[in-house]
Amino acid sequence: MGKLIYLDNAATTPCYEEVAELIKNESVEGYFNPSALYKPSVDNAVKLKTARDAIKSALHAPDGELYFTSGGSEADNTALFCTRKPRNSKIIVGLGEHDAVINSANELKKQGYDVVFAPINTDGSINVAEFKALLDETVSLVSIMHVSNETGAVNDIEKLVRLTRKLAPNAVFHSDGVQAFEKIKVNLRALDVDLYTISAHKIHGPKGIGALFVKKGVSIKPLIYGGGQEKGFRAGTENLPAILGFERAIELNEDNFDKNYSKKVDFKEYLIDRLKAEINDLVIISPAENCTPNILTVAFPNVRGEVLLHAIEEDGILVGIGSACSSHHESRFKSLLGLDEIHRDGIIRFSTSEFSDINDIDFIVKSIESHLQVLQNYKRV
Amino acid sequence: MGKLIYLDNAATTPCYEEVAELIKNESVEGYFNPSALYKPSVDNAVKLKTARDAIKSALHAPDGELYFTSGGSEADNTALFCTRKPRNSKIIVGLGEHDAVINSANELKKQGYDVVFAPINTDGSINVAEFKALLDETVSLVSIMHVSNETGAVNDIEKLVRLTRKLAPNAVFHSDGVQAFEKIKVNLRALDVDLYTISAHKIHGPKGIGALFVKKGVSIKPLIYGGGQEKGFRAGTENLPAILGFERAIELNEDNFDKNYSKKVDFKEYLIDRLKAEINDLVIISPAENCTPNILTVAFPNVRGEVLLHAIEEDGILVGIGSACSSHHESRFKSLLGLDEIHRDGIIRFSTSEFSDINDIDFIVKSIESHLQVLQNYKRV
Repeated sequence: MGKLIYLDNAATTPCYEEVAELIKNESVEGYFNPSALYKPSVDNAVKLKTARDAIKSALHAPDGELYFTSGGSEADNTALFCTRKPRNSKIIVGLGEHDAVINSANELKKQGYDVVFAPINTDGSINVAEFKALLDETVSLVSIMHVSNETGAVNDIEKLVRLTRKLAPNAVFHSDGVQAFEKIKVNLRALDVDLYTISAHKIHGPKGIGALFVKKGVSIKPLIYGGGQEKGFRAGTENLPAILGFERAIELNEDNFDKNYSKKVDFKEYLIDRLKAEINDLVIISPAENCTPNILTVAFPNVRGEVLLHAIEEDGILVGIGSACSSHHESRFKSLLGLDEIHRDGIIRFSTSEFSDINDIDFIVKSIESHLQVLQNYKRV
Repeated sequence: MGKLIYLDNAATTPCYEEVAELIKNESVEGYFNPSALYKPSVDNAVKLKTARDAIKSALHAPDGELYFTSGGSEADNTALFCTRKPRNSKIIVGLGEHDAVINSANELKKQGYDVVFAPINTDGSINVAEFKALLDETVSLVSIMHVSNETGAVNDIEKLVRLTRKLAPNAVFHSDGVQAFEKIKVNLRALDVDLYTISAHKIHGPKGIGALFVKKGVSIKPLIYGGGQEKGFRAGTENLPAILGFERAIELNEDNFDKNYSKKVDFKEYLIDRLKAEINDLVIISPAENCTPNILTVAFPNVRGEVLLHAIEEDGILVGIGSACSSHHESRFKSLLGLDEIHRDGIIRFSTSEFSDINDIDFIVKSIESHLQVLQNYKRV
């Protein structure tokens, strides 16, 4: 394989070299336990606080706490399992949520909660009218993702929170922002959510670190008990090297946000143009508006996404067929998109980063087109 | 501060530079999500399996699974919360366990379980006779650490398991091996535990990664739900860079086990000799036998451990006063040691690693002795 064209950044991203180098140094030289009493540890406790404040600031967070977790899944699980919920109360979860939310909700259902899945539109966004109809005073928890990992659709969280505050005043509102943070502008003060999940490895930070923002006044218990780390909320020796890497990755994202955003918009627009020009009968699943610039999900006709994925992989092009987490079993997601029979198995998700090069697009589309011809002929025979 | 003499390796250890470099490369170059479908990801899934097998092999594990977690605390929490336990059944937990076990047990108590704390001896080890007396058919879970993080005392887990199998046949036996693995020889087949916790950052591996071994046939649910990672047991994008770092750190520990073990024994013996020679009225808390070579916990007379810690810190010597996790609040542990009034506040834990240098001991003891003189005089005035 020659040059690699990596277009599965929604699954995970390469870590910035600068960030990885920082983590290395912090692991080898700055390893001191932030909870110990001597000066290098006290210094580390200060670094931890500084990182926490910087990340809260990048989120434009209101009063509250940012608790570090091992990643987005742990943060989502904490939001779902550890908020105060009367027994048997109603929990609303988007049908297109990440498995970390869906499968936690399924477990809560087994525990006796009235778990209701809010329908999504065929572009992956929440159907607001149907969501609204589910709200009432028995709802204790709502979890709706900010950006769909499958299509890039951006939900209007601000509006959904406003509806929830009005019609379900007892509900805590959680949003999984893993695919939103540093992809679109995120302002937690404006969104007014109670809980918000972020993850480092989706934004060129390290794997194994994420965070849950908890607004002041929201009652939530720990998922992991132990030493008094994270103000007693999340036990375990603080993974300070990764936290500092997360902080630095966020800075690098913030510093170049507008430039990289435009770059991803240009890439996506040109990719759509070229695909439309070269591929017959293509269905664009990602919404034209209210979508992250880094995700384009499409359905090709008369081909299985997995087969096409492996075909263009021969040309060094790596893409996804939806959430990597669920790539090894039939996606529950694709059945929700209302695709006709010739398209329903042909979903491909292109997800870019600042490292994606618009000059690769002609090659990408040519690769898809030529493989598609062979695969479709094969299918017809 | 000139040279640093780091003697708090039971709190955390510096990461091997080679391991940190490997993690850096895996993060920047080998970042692919092990759950995706293209070849670099499939290769990563193979690496993940190889690492899992290598670590099981280092543990001499019987049939079962090793599940990666974000660290020892998450593994302990999973053992405590996620095993199958009839409502209100009895749970036995050592009184000297790590906070990740103690505080999980306290939460289980709130949930209605009959949580009983097994008494410890004054050297930090479990009192076997009293433990035995607690066993009966209503016990659903036992959690006893392999090595005390406070004193280095090694519990005879094999014997405790045997007693449990006989007298509490319905119990699942968990042991927290965070302070044992790669410090003493660990053979899970011989120990016959059902669950065993390990952590990377105590053995010069990265922070943020640990594992729970689960013996075949033991029924246990996930703590973190989501994508089907870890055979559905532990969700979240696999932290492969850290896992590969963990694997390599274990290899490096194994390769030099005997040599480093002897080195730590020599260090400890000479430190004890010198302390006994120079310090009046010293109490050695760590047991003379059945103790890890890397931990020596002592109590100095007429001084507060925290004050002495800061005094010798001026000479570049970093020590602990017990579990770092609980260093900011009054240790529940020290009240269990049966120390007289002049010693009970004077606990210092020296914990070494292969990087500790026996040639530093004269300087260390001199530092302690001279500071102690000043502090004790000060106290007397």
